[in-house]
Amino acid sequence: MDNKIIARPLSVEEFAPFGEVIEKEGAEQFSINEGLCTRFHDLATIEFSGPSAKPLLSVFSSKPCPLPLELKMVERHPLGSQAFIPFLGAPFLVIVAPDQAGTPGRPLAFVTAKGQGINFRKNTWHGVLSPLQEPAEFMVIDRGGEGDNLEEYKFNDPYFVTV
Amino acid sequence: MDNKIIARPLSVEEFAPFGEVIEKEGAEQFSINEGLCTRFHDLATIEFSGPSAKPLLSVFSSKPCPLPLELKMVERHPLGSQAFIPFLGAPFLVIVAPDQAGTPGRPLAFVTAKGQGINFRKNTWHGVLSPLQEPAEFMVIDRGGEGDNLEEYKFNDPYFVTV
Repeated sequence: MDNKIIARPLSVEEFAPFGEVIEKEGAEQFSINEGLCTRFHDLATIEFSGPSAKPLLSVFSSKPCPLPLELKMVERHPLGSQAFIPFLGAPFLVIVAPDQAGTPGRPLAFVTAKGQGINFRKNTWHGVLSPLQEPAEFMVIDRGGEGDNLEEYKFNDPYFVTV
Repeated sequence: MDNKIIARPLSVEEFAPFGEVIEKEGAEQFSINEGLCTRFHDLATIEFSGPSAKPLLSVFSSKPCPLPLELKMVERHPLGSQAFIPFLGAPFLVIVAPDQAGTPGRPLAFVTAKGQGINFRKNTWHGVLSPLQEPAEFMVIDRGGEGDNLEEYKFNDPYFVTV
């Protein structure tokens, strides 16, 4: 088995099956506050379903991941999307996998450009937050409420991800 | 009429009638991703009501406001909260006013500490985004959907706000 994965630059098109790229470029924008401010509007589709579901705003403060990243597992959230936006805009690694009849297929890896964030669609297999440098603080918008919103899948053999 | 307002340092207690201070300090936190990451959990109450209501994630890019700030009007959003989190954490000015039988009373002004964001509760009178320095980019979480979510109030005489 080829267990090496090389991350590609994140692109809106390639990432579309898995989620959205959060960025000002290409966004609907309009001027507000008597011209003092530009609003880059509605950059992600925030999904939340199930009993007592609500959107949550949180901050993740992470250590960077050493490369190559040993990818032993992926996870998904069947009840909600999950958005990650880096405070300082630093590039980070984004790992996703297509679903194949309930289990993840071969993962894909992307590296964000400076300033980009991402939003995983509901029920998308993905690796955990993987910053490439410090400090690595992210604003996170995901789903709170009752119900089991976490499914994990451990690979028999790990993948190794490089940039 | 005393039309001068001096901003005070933002405090959780003083701001509580108007909204929430978004910060890691004092937040519920727990370790995730095998200890690599700390989650500062559920930092703001995201409110959205009315037909087809949904939370929106947007970015505001604003010019700084010259001081003293001439406060000619305040606004409120009857159908949703509005959160502002500065990407680079720079302090900004936060202006609010208590409601007095449907119109705003005398405004109060606060200056955030580095790294703080704020979340205006639904239907809270407030001034528009007022950064104090450049660059001034903010993540904004507010409410989308049908219905009139904006009420503005123009003061007969402006206030002047300093820090």
